[in-house]
Amino acid sequence: MQDKLKELKSYLSEVYDLNNISALLNWDQNTFMPKGGATARGRQLGLMEKIAHEKKTDREIGRLLDELASYEKSLPVDSQDAAVIRVARRQYEKAVQVPASFMAEMVSHLTDTYQVWVEARSANDFTKVQSYLEKTLDYSRQYAEYFPHEHIADPLIDDSDEGMTVEVLRPLFSDLRKQLVPLVKAIAEQDPVDDSCLKKHFPEQEQWKFGLDVIRQLGYDFDRGRLDKTHHPFMTKFSLGDVRITTRVKENNMTEALFSSIHETGHALYEQGISMNFEGTPLAQGASSGVHESQSRLWENIVGRSYGFWKHFYPKLQATFPEQFRRVSLDTFYRAINKVEPSLIRTDADELTYNLHVMIRFDLELDLLEGRLAVKDLPEAWRERYKSDIGVFDPKDADGVLQDVHWYFGNIGGAFQGYTLGNILSAQFYDAALRAKPNIPNQIQDGEFGVLHGWLKENLYQYGSQYTAADIVKRATGSDLTVKPYLAYLQEKFGKLYSLK
Amino acid sequence: MQDKLKELKSYLSEVYDLNNISALLNWDQNTFMPKGGATARGRQLGLMEKIAHEKKTDREIGRLLDELASYEKSLPVDSQDAAVIRVARRQYEKAVQVPASFMAEMVSHLTDTYQVWVEARSANDFTKVQSYLEKTLDYSRQYAEYFPHEHIADPLIDDSDEGMTVEVLRPLFSDLRKQLVPLVKAIAEQDPVDDSCLKKHFPEQEQWKFGLDVIRQLGYDFDRGRLDKTHHPFMTKFSLGDVRITTRVKENNMTEALFSSIHETGHALYEQGISMNFEGTPLAQGASSGVHESQSRLWENIVGRSYGFWKHFYPKLQATFPEQFRRVSLDTFYRAINKVEPSLIRTDADELTYNLHVMIRFDLELDLLEGRLAVKDLPEAWRERYKSDIGVFDPKDADGVLQDVHWYFGNIGGAFQGYTLGNILSAQFYDAALRAKPNIPNQIQDGEFGVLHGWLKENLYQYGSQYTAADIVKRATGSDLTVKPYLAYLQEKFGKLYSLK
Repeated sequence: MQDKLKELKSYLSEVYDLNNISALLNWDQNTFMPKGGATARGRQLGLMEKIAHEKKTDREIGRLLDELASYEKSLPVDSQDAAVIRVARRQYEKAVQVPASFMAEMVSHLTDTYQVWVEARSANDFTKVQSYLEKTLDYSRQYAEYFPHEHIADPLIDDSDEGMTVEVLRPLFSDLRKQLVPLVKAIAEQDPVDDSCLKKHFPEQEQWKFGLDVIRQLGYDFDRGRLDKTHHPFMTKFSLGDVRITTRVKENNMTEALFSSIHETGHALYEQGISMNFEGTPLAQGASSGVHESQSRLWENIVGRSYGFWKHFYPKLQATFPEQFRRVSLDTFYRAINKVEPSLIRTDADELTYNLHVMIRFDLELDLLEGRLAVKDLPEAWRERYKSDIGVFDPKDADGVLQDVHWYFGNIGGAFQGYTLGNILSAQFYDAALRAKPNIPNQIQDGEFGVLHGWLKENLYQYGSQYTAADIVKRATGSDLTVKPYLAYLQEKFGKLYSLK
Repeated sequence: MQDKLKELKSYLSEVYDLNNISALLNWDQNTFMPKGGATARGRQLGLMEKIAHEKKTDREIGRLLDELASYEKSLPVDSQDAAVIRVARRQYEKAVQVPASFMAEMVSHLTDTYQVWVEARSANDFTKVQSYLEKTLDYSRQYAEYFPHEHIADPLIDDSDEGMTVEVLRPLFSDLRKQLVPLVKAIAEQDPVDDSCLKKHFPEQEQWKFGLDVIRQLGYDFDRGRLDKTHHPFMTKFSLGDVRITTRVKENNMTEALFSSIHETGHALYEQGISMNFEGTPLAQGASSGVHESQSRLWENIVGRSYGFWKHFYPKLQATFPEQFRRVSLDTFYRAINKVEPSLIRTDADELTYNLHVMIRFDLELDLLEGRLAVKDLPEAWRERYKSDIGVFDPKDADGVLQDVHWYFGNIGGAFQGYTLGNILSAQFYDAALRAKPNIPNQIQDGEFGVLHGWLKENLYQYGSQYTAADIVKRATGSDLTVKPYLAYLQEKFGKLYSLK
């Protein structure tokens, strides 16, 4: 059996490397590639996808998995080998379930759709891309139909958040929304917070240096990563020894680069924290989209937008930008970076309203998949939900239904739930860390992040995908997914900030 | 036949893209990769090499080439399709001639050898790597034996300089050496040139900006390329739309970054100048190692170290570094950047002695392959040749036989002739350009490089590998490879510089 396992791992290691090579092609495309390289890069990515798909669906993997089935059952539940076989089986079965010809057709359609979306968005005209999106909806349904399911969206959700279903998510999100909407309303009735101190001129070079210092102090390992500029910040990985992040700098807004860097650092700390024993196996990645997002949000919001964090860093920020911040108190600054303001754009949204943006998209995905909403009516449905849930209205599609790339580059369904699951889980993990290490808030005030980072490494990061998302949440926090710590966190933080009763 | 040709081109396009993906992995490794990425990168490069080798040697390519043989003969000699088939056939036959198992063994040996060489060089101890090099010599001979040949080195030379043989090169180099050695000796008897003006402090940022301005003016297209920092400067290509160059900056020596940038720009102008119709085919590359090097040397030396070039650029350089150059005349600067000085290190050598370094290596390769020199005696043979040919002596292996990576990362044989062929051809091409456009030297004085660049594009660059090196030299210059223009150029330039009779 050891020979067969070794053979399986050798296949998996090639799949792993092929995926990582594609990741490098993508990273370069989004950081340094000159525009002349675009055509060939599309071809190169398509070729790598083809090769990786052939490798992932190689019948030999299926044969080896069959032969290893009884061996797998004989292994203890915490065995790394058992986990490798389990995740490999899941990925193999997902990959072979869908005919290669269907996948190729769909990928080719999505590539075209992306191009048309770029034009439609810049022309602020949804009708340009409407027929493409209708086809995407068909493809998404067909894709889902290849898998057994209760709800048509379940297989799509399962792709990024294994085991999650509409049956679980719908009441969870509905509960959350019920609590969030009145909170946002109560805040909207108050005098608006003055955040003009963040909108001065902040030279790029100083922002860059300050950001590097912050993320280094948080624990990002520059021997195994680097920070570069891009248009839409992301984290990517070429191996456990090379986990890179990107950011964008706006000279008229100092929060953009800083908080997107901290966000991506959260993702990167997770990947850099995975056990090096997992390198080259399918365990060398986060447990799910939601768990991954929990780490970016934990570091960005719970840590990075906390009062304690800025008690430590604000004097350094003032020293970096003396003109801009000399007359701004810590309290004013803290209120500014936590300003709640109903807005149109998800990626610019504050911590509180962000979830409303996500849940609107989640609901609309379900409406589309269930056939209760036609693609042609989507722009209007979008505007209505923004008015009722967030209290903002904009007639422009570009800032409405065309604002996110997700539906124009991938399936409809499963694209958004991870963001709010991440917010919920960020508080659940942080709460568990505090119970184990109550001194963490004081350490944060002193600019010490090692204990929090260490607890997360020990209880979450090191395991990569060894356990499912549900299992690792239970192991690390002692309970199943629960929205309670998140609501408590929001209510305490924003209740205090806005002096709510 | 059109279908078969299309099918062949589809295979070739995948080979092309696979090679270019490996090139990106290499570029990243040598520019931005954090050290933690090294292990996985080696694995990724090995995997891509394996996949590319499988594709290159796919029997289907052989079948298609057979089926296209008579069609190929029916095509006019200048046909692009005929050239695609010809180059594809050459590459396929080279690739299948050598058993995959032998190649894998050799590559694995060379990977080990490289690691040992790094240690041996830093320990200044050739004996550490001697047994590896002995094995490399065996592999090189065995590799050559797979091909029909007159001289054992011919197949190795043919890999990078198609059609070149020892029979041609030995007398050519011998002639050249006979003329160069006395020229170098005559110069060495003169008072040494004072080049202290180049050895002041030159802040990196200003060097960088000046270098960018120069290469942009030479015609390097930044929409289809970029310049980054590395340890050992190189040019690389990911498609005809993405041709990148690298340089290294030394703050105590302003010639390092500038001339290496111009050198790599020469390579890049060649690749950027290839007809876009060739994208994705084996024609989308330079004709040979020697022809490629001719363009780096033409732009670096014949143009970049000419008096006219600096008549234009020196005032700008003085404005960039006013403190450093205020009291340095153009004549002093020009003499400094053209200083001839016998030295130990090839890559630091001046334009004139550089060839002596190369020819020593070429001769030693032949001696080793012919069995007239044992690997264990190589360090001593190296020192003797340096003493007799260049007039310098150093007991250290690190600066002797261990200085170049070539023999420790590839075959012995075929590694060096391209450099001197490049020097010879640089003058032959330039001479032809001058005959067609006699005004070029005046244009250079005005900072205008478009006519020279245009002539090279029209007569050399656009053709990529459509013609063999021998054919393109004949087409572009009207004659076969000849050392005459190069000797005339050297004698005129250095005769004047050193007031020789």
